[in-house]
Amino acid sequence: MIANMHQPRTQNFEARVRDSFGRQAMMKSLRAEIVELAAGRIVLQMPFQANFTQQHGFMHAGAITTLLDSACGYSAFSLMDENVAVLTVEFKTTLIAPAAGQMFRAVAEVVKSGRNLTFSEGRAFAEDGGSSRLIATMSGTLMAVAGRADIQG
Amino acid sequence: MIANMHQPRTQNFEARVRDSFGRQAMMKSLRAEIVELAAGRIVLQMPFQANFTQQHGFMHAGAITTLLDSACGYSAFSLMDENVAVLTVEFKTTLIAPAAGQMFRAVAEVVKSGRNLTFSEGRAFAEDGGSSRLIATMSGTLMAVAGRADIQG
Amino acid sequence: MIANMHQPRTQNFEARVRDSFGRQAMMKSLRAEIVELAAGRIVLQMPFQANFTQQHGFMHAGAITTLLDSACGYSAFSLMDENVAVLTVEFKTTLIAPAAGQMFRAVAEVVKSGRNLTFSEGRAFAEDGGSSRLIATMSGTLMAVAGRADIQG
Amino acid sequence: MIANMHQPRTQNFEARVRDSFGRQAMMKSLRAEIVELAAGRIVLQMPFQANFTQQHGFMHAGAITTLLDSACGYSAFSLMDENVAVLTVEFKTTLIAPAAGQMFRAVAEVVKSGRNLTFSEGRAFAEDGGSSRLIATMSGTLMAVAGRADIQG
Repeated sequence: MIANMHQPRTQNFEARVRDSFGRQAMMKSLRAEIVELAAGRIVLQMPFQANFTQQHGFMHAGAITTLLDSACGYSAFSLMDENVAVLTVEFKTTLIAPAAGQMFRAVAEVVKSGRNLTFSEGRAFAEDGGSSRLIATMSGTLMAVAGRADIQG
Repeated sequence: MIANMHQPRTQNFEARVRDSFGRQAMMKSLRAEIVELAAGRIVLQMPFQANFTQQHGFMHAGAITTLLDSACGYSAFSLMDENVAVLTVEFKTTLIAPAAGQMFRAVAEVVKSGRNLTFSEGRAFAEDGGSSRLIATMSGTLMAVAGRADIQG
Repeated sequence: MIANMHQPRTQNFEARVRDSFGRQAMMKSLRAEIVELAAGRIVLQMPFQANFTQQHGFMHAGAITTLLDSACGYSAFSLMDENVAVLTVEFKTTLIAPAAGQMFRAVAEVVKSGRNLTFSEGRAFAEDGGSSRLIATMSGTLMAVAGRADIQG
Repeated sequence: MIANMHQPRTQNFEARVRDSFGRQAMMKSLRAEIVELAAGRIVLQMPFQANFTQQHGFMHAGAITTLLDSACGYSAFSLMDENVAVLTVEFKTTLIAPAAGQMFRAVAEVVKSGRNLTFSEGRAFAEDGGSSRLIATMSGTLMAVAGRADIQG
C-alpha cells in the first residue's frame, strides 16, 4: 500500500465513519470492530465464528470479503465530503491462503480519492497467538453518492 | 453467460455438491438454499435478513458476494474430479445496484473447466413481488485441491 | 452476456463511436476494425501480428486486453450523452486460453448504463480457419467524463 | 506493496527473466526495457509513443496494462522453478489517472509465490521531467506451466 498523507475534506470524518459503521448490522453480526481509524485508512477486526465458515471449517471467503469491503468503504468515506454517502462500485478479492485463525484483521487504505470515485486497497490477515499471516487482498472502487433520500451516511 | 453443455467428470456430482453445500455453516446463517443444480451451473437463493445489512438498510455487498462466491464455487465443483476439493482463488464483484428486495438469487455458470483451474461467472438478482432486477455480477477463478488432509469435499 | 435492448441517448451514436475509434492510434497499430456496431454492443477484430506477441509466440495478453478494453469502452460510449467522453475506470481480464490463432475478435456488451458509470462485459475469441475459441473475458467499468478540455469524444 | 524478502528457487533467475523478456516481441514494439530486477520484483519502463495512444492522445489503457502484465509476469517468473514457463491467469487493472507523460514505469512485486500460482501486484507511474504520478494499479494471478512443448520459458 502507498504510504501517503491523506487530507480529510471534513473535520468530523471520524465521527461520521463511526456512526455509519455502527449502523451496519452486518458488522455487528460478524462481531467486527474498528481498531484504528485515520483519514484515508482504517483497520477492522473480527473473531473466528463457526457460523460463518465454509465447508472445510475455515471462515468463508465471503466473510473475509465482507470485512475487507467495509474497510475499503470506510477508508474512502473518511475522505469524502460532508453531504455524501458511500457505495461500493466493484472490488476484486484475491484469496492468498485459507482463512484459518482466531482473529481476522482487515487493513484498508485509499490509493486515490476523487470527488466521485475513490480507489482503495485492503489486506486481510489471520492472527493466531502471536503470529499474523496475509490471507487476502482487495482492490476496490467506491463512489460518493449525493442527493438520494434512501442513501445517506 | 455462455450457454454450453458441460460434461461432469463424476456420476455423483449432485450428491457431492449438496453434501459440501450442507457443510457450509455460512450458507445456513444466510438461510441460503440450492434452487437449481446441473453440471456446471447452479442457482442459489436467500431471503432478505436485517442482520446482514449495510448502513442504508440494503443487504451488505459482502452478503451478496458470499452467495455469488458459493454459487461460482459449486458450479465449478460440479465439474471437478472425485478426489478433489474446491477453493476460491479470486473473484471480482461488480455492484450494479443496491441490494434492495425480499429475495436474492445467484446464478453461476462455468465458463471453462480445466483440471486445476475453473473459471465461473455469476449474476445476482433482487426479487420483489413478481419483479427481478440484476444487482451484481461476479467473475471468479476456482482451484481444484487434492491431497490435503484439511481440505476435502 | 445479457441480451437486452439498449436505448441510445443520442441519434448519432454510431458516427460518434466510429469517429472516436478512428482517433485511437493504438487501434490502427493493432490493425483493429469495427465489424459490428449497435447501441450498447460492438464487435472488433484484429489479425495475428508477430510484433505483438509474448515469449511463446502467442499474441500478448496485453494486446488481447487492449482490444477488449476498446470494445468495452465503445459499447459504453454508444449509450452515453452527446457532450461526454469515455474513460476506463477499471477492468478485469481472465485469460482462458493462450491467444493462438489468425484472427481475434472481441465482443462487448453493456450490462448497465448509468449517467456516470457504465458496466460492460467482453469476450475474446481466437479464430483459425472455420473454428472459433473463447480465449479471454473482460468485466469493466467505464466513466462518462464531461467538461474537460483535454478529454472529448 | 508488501516489502518482504523473496527466495528464488533457481540460481539463474535473472538470466531466465532477461532471456524470456527478450523474446517478447510486444516489449520491443513498446520499446520497453528492464530497469531493475530482483527475486520477486521488477521495474519496466517505456517511452510515450504516439502510435499506442487512445482517442484523447494519452497512452492507451491497454498499453499501460501490457507493461504491467509483463512486469507482474516476470516478478512471478523470477521465483519459479527451472523447468516451468509462466502464463497469466487473470489480472485487474485500475486506471487512476490518464496516461499522460513522457515515460511510463511499471513496478511489480510478488505478494505470494506458490508452486502453481503466484499473486503479484503492480503500479504504473507517468514521469514527466522530474515528477512521477501514479496512474494505474494491477492485481494479478500467474501460473507456472510445466510439460507443454509449446510453452517454455
